[in-house]
Amino acid sequence: MSQNRFQNLYPPMPSIFMAPTEIMYDAKHLFLFSHTQGVKKPYKEVIDICWGDAHSGGTKPLTFVRQVIAVCIYPELLQETTIAPDVKERARRLLRECPGGSVGKYCVCGIPFVQDGVCEFISKRDGGVPSYPEDIFICSGSQNALMFVLKLLVHGKGLAQTGVLTPIPCYPTFVMGLTELGAAMVPYYLCEDDGWCLHVEELRRALATSRSHCNPRILYVINPGNPTGHVQSRESIEEVIRFAAEEELFIFADEVYQDMMYAEGSQFVSYKKVLFEMGPQYSNTVELASFHSVSKGIMGECGLRCGYVELVNLDPSVKQSVTSAFNTERNTAVIGQIALNIMVDPPKPGDPSYPTFSQVSLHETVEALPGTSFQAGSGGIYAYLRLDLPQKALLQAKEEGTDPDLMYCSRLLEEEGVCLVVGKEHGQQEGTYHIRICIGTTSTRLKEVLRRLKSFHLRFLNEFS
Amino acid sequence: MSQNRFQNLYPPMPSIFMAPTEIMYDAKHLFLFSHTQGVKKPYKEVIDICWGDAHSGGTKPLTFVRQVIAVCIYPELLQETTIAPDVKERARRLLRECPGGSVGKYCVCGIPFVQDGVCEFISKRDGGVPSYPEDIFICSGSQNALMFVLKLLVHGKGLAQTGVLTPIPCYPTFVMGLTELGAAMVPYYLCEDDGWCLHVEELRRALATSRSHCNPRILYVINPGNPTGHVQSRESIEEVIRFAAEEELFIFADEVYQDMMYAEGSQFVSYKKVLFEMGPQYSNTVELASFHSVSKGIMGECGLRCGYVELVNLDPSVKQSVTSAFNTERNTAVIGQIALNIMVDPPKPGDPSYPTFSQVSLHETVEALPGTSFQAGSGGIYAYLRLDLPQKALLQAKEEGTDPDLMYCSRLLEEEGVCLVVGKEHGQQEGTYHIRICIGTTSTRLKEVLRRLKSFHLRFLNEFS
Ligand SMILES: Cc1ncc(COP(=O)(O)O)c(C=O)c1O
Ligand SMILES: Cc1ncc(COP(=O)(O)O)c(C=O)c1O
Repeated sequence: MSQNRFQNLYPPMPSIFMAPTEIMYDAKHLFLFSHTQGVKKPYKEVIDICWGDAHSGGTKPLTFVRQVIAVCIYPELLQETTIAPDVKERARRLLRECPGGSVGKYCVCGIPFVQDGVCEFISKRDGGVPSYPEDIFICSGSQNALMFVLKLLVHGKGLAQTGVLTPIPCYPTFVMGLTELGAAMVPYYLCEDDGWCLHVEELRRALATSRSHCNPRILYVINPGNPTGHVQSRESIEEVIRFAAEEELFIFADEVYQDMMYAEGSQFVSYKKVLFEMGPQYSNTVELASFHSVSKGIMGECGLRCGYVELVNLDPSVKQSVTSAFNTERNTAVIGQIALNIMVDPPKPGDPSYPTFSQVSLHETVEALPGTSFQAGSGGIYAYLRLDLPQKALLQAKEEGTDPDLMYCSRLLEEEGVCLVVGKEHGQQEGTYHIRICIGTTSTRLKEVLRRLKSFHLRFLNEFS
Repeated sequence: MSQNRFQNLYPPMPSIFMAPTEIMYDAKHLFLFSHTQGVKKPYKEVIDICWGDAHSGGTKPLTFVRQVIAVCIYPELLQETTIAPDVKERARRLLRECPGGSVGKYCVCGIPFVQDGVCEFISKRDGGVPSYPEDIFICSGSQNALMFVLKLLVHGKGLAQTGVLTPIPCYPTFVMGLTELGAAMVPYYLCEDDGWCLHVEELRRALATSRSHCNPRILYVINPGNPTGHVQSRESIEEVIRFAAEEELFIFADEVYQDMMYAEGSQFVSYKKVLFEMGPQYSNTVELASFHSVSKGIMGECGLRCGYVELVNLDPSVKQSVTSAFNTERNTAVIGQIALNIMVDPPKPGDPSYPTFSQVSLHETVEALPGTSFQAGSGGIYAYLRLDLPQKALLQAKEEGTDPDLMYCSRLLEEEGVCLVVGKEHGQQEGTYHIRICIGTTSTRLKEVLRRLKSFHLRFLNEFS
């Protein structure tokens, strides 16, 4: 098997602000490859903690989810005595709701029962704000949903090219999607010194600047943030909505980390809830798309590919186009929809499967490292650390013709067998350097990562001091 | 549950040549709805035999497929004594090949092991013609694959608009896809009197005509045909390839029904095989995309959403775009890929699961009906019947402001509870009328359909004679 075969397992790097990161990816593949080929290293196992992929991080899949799907796939398992009654009940119910009682049939654009479940979930989450099945589009992951909706809005060239206000730092796949679709990325910077807050003045600045080269129409926000982990307050969301209303921007609220709040006392509030509580002036006019996914949250099932988008206040003709685009693609697997149903309606305390279900958790506390600064977030699955690199290290990187954070991460991989994501990949302010750690992993693993990182970091500082 | 909720289960009708068919779909939904509400009818069960969906037709899913997936989803089943050793072996192997040993992780663009299996399958099928993993793109169904590749080729407006030569009759989803992407559909007619053969003169005519309004670049062929069931001979394929080479057309060979040959002595030959046997003048130049899917063939798993496209002789820059588009969308579920692996490498005679596997078959013989004409196909899962409707029936339809075949099908549904697809939906020559029956069903069911159809048909002829 040749080395380039690994590339399929990872996404290619977006070209917008991160060409150098390709080197890191290549290094990683080569490295992982040579490692599996038995090249001797001072550690036993390479820890790849790049991706927001809970199972890669060592978290176990939820038994309830896997059992229900197994029974739906192979209904003979309904006879098994080892499988809990609530698992069987859910599987029976879901099979009844699948067209023709099987997961093997076309179900073009969402099983109505699953859509209904999503609505109930949203409405309960938002304290009773209604949610309608015809606004819910179930698709093959939230990335797929993002692309669907973007595809329908993005058009034009030059001054007419659709601009998308995009937070920096931002995870790279979204930026790749924008490039793919021919949208103009309009960067707005999150304020690191203020715990990665979103400031409306910065949105205003970005918008004004962008008008000289494109037509800004969409405002993309990630809450809780990736990679920052920052969770927006209700007041911040209100401000953003008011701004979007004034400027007639369509809000894309990427809320895939909504179920992953770990800071004591902090709470996730959805854009939709805030929008509806701001009264009809806003709730009847501001266009909003909110995204969620089974890849994240309590189950972390990235391989099943299912998510949804709720569309609010859409122009009826655009809505019609969305409906027809979803129907034409028909790519959502029925099994993913089953996972979605469990995500929005998990077992409750008292159900036989409840203990197994709640025992596995992604929430972990993060420890800060010496010689770095860290704006602790309160949700999501990432810790985003700033590296304060010594002048000598910056010079060395320059000499090697590489970026300082890339050099840092390559060495970390080489010397300690830990793969992290280079800040450059998310975009960062000139002269600042960051690394992203996925904390959606077991505590044992996270401790080991921090142990290796610390040992490397001290050595690195020492070398360049 | 309101009636319009059913619409999500069915695709909307394409607007190009079939606006009236919407009425049939609406009628069907309303009808199925009223039926479930207990409106009395002279039959117990409505038989919906519209779709190319084997499980809807009553065919049972293959035990081996379902067991392997269940084990991969819930590996604790490896302990079960009731599950055959070859099932466990395959599941273990596949889990080893999934990133991190789980079906729950991102696996952006195909598991290398599954890609390798596809290559071996193709190469064996084509008598040794090599197939390379980097040419195989695994995706969320063949419709998804078609859209992916089309998306990269279709562009322009007016005379520069990409034209796609499309067989008539053709299943509607493809045509919807073309509309969605802004391609010009260039119809070429299959020759009904010659058993639905593809004649190169007709291609030439269609191409010449199209040049006055678009830029024809793609030639779409379906072999075995949907809805015709016609299987192309090697000579016919050679002719088509020569034509494509002369006219610099990119061939899209939709070969999803390749494993479903039912006529004695007839054989499926792939476009790729013929292309390679025609020598380097063709095999090194003609661009070819060949599509296959787990929705069809021996397993009929439409709900799992997985297929592949093999791309041959692609321009490297286009190939690069395809790769990046596949990676950006990342919507193929790992479970679908497992099904794909089994499709291309099913249990062999002697394996414990072999008997269960081969016992379920989609191949059924079709009986012709009196008062209709039928060009029997030799592959695929459809029978396409021509209705020779009496003059009085045509007048009645005109009076009702509807299409004769639509009137026929609506009544068939109303009076006998059988849903078929109206020929109008596939496109047909002016003044001819057809119906499509999906024969990918159990023999008991097919017999019942034919019994009801016959009884209705005789009554209908009688009424209008
Ligand atoms: C903020 C955010 N949105 C969307 C996605 C895409 O997730 P998926 O397509 O698996 O649902 C990710 C993946 O990491 C993400 O971090
Ligand atoms: C000829 C043909 N190609 C492609 C498809 C799409 O199949 P899928 O997307 O399920 O693989 C169909 C579906 O009926 C078909 O008949």
